[in-house]
Amino acid sequence: MNTYTYEKSQSLFKRAAKVIPCGIYGHLSPAPLVPPTDYPFYAAKASGSKFWDVDGNEFIDYMCAYGPMVLGYNNPIVEEAAEKQRKLGNCITSPSPVMVDLAEYLVNLISIADWAFFAKNGGDATSFALMIARAATGRAKAILIKGGYHGVSPWAQGPGHHGVTDEDVKNNIYVKWNDISQIEEAISDNPKQIAAFMATPYHHPAFTDSEMPGDGYWQKVEQICKKEGIVLIVDDVRCGFRLDMRGSNEYFGFKPDLICYCKAIGNGYPISALVGKDYLRNYAAKVFYTGSYWFSAVPMAAALTTLKELERINGPDIMIKLGKKLTDGMTEIAKTYGYNLKVTGVPSMPSIYITDDESLMLHQDFCAACTKRGAFFTSHHNWFISTAHTDEDIQRTWDIVEDAFKAIKKK
Amino acid sequence: MNTYTYEKSQSLFKRAAKVIPCGIYGHLSPAPLVPPTDYPFYAAKASGSKFWDVDGNEFIDYMCAYGPMVLGYNNPIVEEAAEKQRKLGNCITSPSPVMVDLAEYLVNLISIADWAFFAKNGGDATSFALMIARAATGRAKAILIKGGYHGVSPWAQGPGHHGVTDEDVKNNIYVKWNDISQIEEAISDNPKQIAAFMATPYHHPAFTDSEMPGDGYWQKVEQICKKEGIVLIVDDVRCGFRLDMRGSNEYFGFKPDLICYCKAIGNGYPISALVGKDYLRNYAAKVFYTGSYWFSAVPMAAALTTLKELERINGPDIMIKLGKKLTDGMTEIAKTYGYNLKVTGVPSMPSIYITDDESLMLHQDFCAACTKRGAFFTSHHNWFISTAHTDEDIQRTWDIVEDAFKAIKKK
Repeated sequence: MNTYTYEKSQSLFKRAAKVIPCGIYGHLSPAPLVPPTDYPFYAAKASGSKFWDVDGNEFIDYMCAYGPMVLGYNNPIVEEAAEKQRKLGNCITSPSPVMVDLAEYLVNLISIADWAFFAKNGGDATSFALMIARAATGRAKAILIKGGYHGVSPWAQGPGHHGVTDEDVKNNIYVKWNDISQIEEAISDNPKQIAAFMATPYHHPAFTDSEMPGDGYWQKVEQICKKEGIVLIVDDVRCGFRLDMRGSNEYFGFKPDLICYCKAIGNGYPISALVGKDYLRNYAAKVFYTGSYWFSAVPMAAALTTLKELERINGPDIMIKLGKKLTDGMTEIAKTYGYNLKVTGVPSMPSIYITDDESLMLHQDFCAACTKRGAFFTSHHNWFISTAHTDEDIQRTWDIVEDAFKAIKKK
Repeated sequence: MNTYTYEKSQSLFKRAAKVIPCGIYGHLSPAPLVPPTDYPFYAAKASGSKFWDVDGNEFIDYMCAYGPMVLGYNNPIVEEAAEKQRKLGNCITSPSPVMVDLAEYLVNLISIADWAFFAKNGGDATSFALMIARAATGRAKAILIKGGYHGVSPWAQGPGHHGVTDEDVKNNIYVKWNDISQIEEAISDNPKQIAAFMATPYHHPAFTDSEMPGDGYWQKVEQICKKEGIVLIVDDVRCGFRLDMRGSNEYFGFKPDLICYCKAIGNGYPISALVGKDYLRNYAAKVFYTGSYWFSAVPMAAALTTLKELERINGPDIMIKLGKKLTDGMTEIAKTYGYNLKVTGVPSMPSIYITDDESLMLHQDFCAACTKRGAFFTSHHNWFISTAHTDEDIQRTWDIVEDAFKAIKKK
């Protein structure tokens, strides 16, 4: 099996480094990809489950644009709906009727939703959720999970990050995932001061395994929040519509007060959403929250069609089954070469690490070896499955994985 | 001249009120439009300088989607570039080459720009600018102008707003626009603690006249910031590419360290940008800042084409001349009916109020009367001109204005 080279990616990156801080910043930065020279930096095109880089290399994409791609790149059904709306108009002085259609659809779909609100980023939704909780409770503090990610707002980045002030994070209280006693302690240390508890449906930090909620964890959290008048916020930005169409909380059997969506909601069209319970509606109305493109109709039309299609085909079920098949097969192949793969998280967004490799050196080698053979794997973040991934993709990925293990073994 | 009715808008709004807080929230909320019954709430389609509401009424649009529309709705040149990129791909696991092209273009275009960074909202850019200033200076405080708008982040909303904590705004120091002594006082009260001075190129608050910078104001601010090691940030989100293609600061003759762009940059495609001087590049690289759709290629392709087209035709010059013609004519017509119109701000985004009407009652009547005759005017916010507005549009608007004044006079 030949491996890829990336001359054009690298020459574009050299140009980029002159005019863009880091060349490529944020979650698409090549910095955590090791060795970066084994990865493509720029995509020329994308279709279905694959993308092609500027050097013409083809990749089965297991990052799915870090989540937004859920029905396949350039899905014809979504594109048709978007095109129809685009011809009418997108970002206009008044919103379009599709905004009402989408809100009605979400309120019907999501079990806890009595209303919906639309923005652009996941972080727009998490910040707005926190502001609503503060407006509703008249309290300032928030309980967050250590190592959780809720976007790049200074409060969400947490202490010690560049550009974050002490005041930005003064109201954050961090607790360990799956630890009820730390939540209870935070509450007793800060009586009637806690506005919100915010967490992802399960814990999916970078650079390490995902952790599922322990038995009864969420039910206990829900009970505590109700008793203490704390707004329970689920950040479903990453898991949303990959676990359960009714809200990832349904996958784990609990009911939050607010749920934040982004990523998979519009199959790559830029939209995020916050949905909530009726008792928070007036507070959501009171907090002023808006943005230049938040009423754009095309992403709303795309989201409505994406959600309908995911519901029609039971997208989460398809992705969970595909993810299970992929990772079960990979685990078997790894064993035959003497490696153990630890797979955590829900299979539609699996987290995979080679065991007994705390430095991640071996794991990085493996991910890079697969990538330069055509299966795009990152070593520091959970992967994503889409409904566009096929059995053929999985078979080809297994072949790539086998060849990669062979190459690593030789080294 | 017949006036419009809005049965379908109102019935859609009734549906919306059940599933969306406020029905329509944020800057598109009908709440400040008085009487709201004289305004359309939902747009069915848009083209060039006009939009049509769901009741089939046609409007010459003087809000331009509150700024993003600058070359006309569905401008064929921009749409062609977007479509070409869309067929290749939009939101992919790696960025597209157009990101580098756009950054290079901005660095060439904007006089102070040594690098460019892309996000989605204007508020993403203003918050990032503040974080960079803090990272670069190791200081926390920021000087802001009373009544200025920099987005909906809690720090930007300011004290007393719903959902904003004391800590969110603890580092804000507010000074009066055009008042150098208050800036000097803020600095002497907070020695070596001020990271940034942030303001719009000229002061364009809601519900009142715009105010231009006084003679030498910006030059003095620039001088003070340099001396005190304060990062000078221009929020060019609203003015950007409507005053001067090289940066609105060039219109007023000064050089900031960072400039925030959004709105007109992509003719409605969702993208914002921060550009900055070389000495801040490493700090921009250090602050972690990203979002799910920030690398999407279609808005970048749209922005590149929008900027090239605006530069080719000298868009700011066209809009300034059109705005001057429109408002000069309106002022003349107003006089013949015994009213004085005060026009402030740069003519490409004029602020217009009837004088001697502090309650805005008369002004609201006038704006509503024009809107329901087909010229969409709001009474509480500056208007926007695009390059797609025509002499015919202006003539028709004058006729509408005349008819509106007649109707108001009768009342």
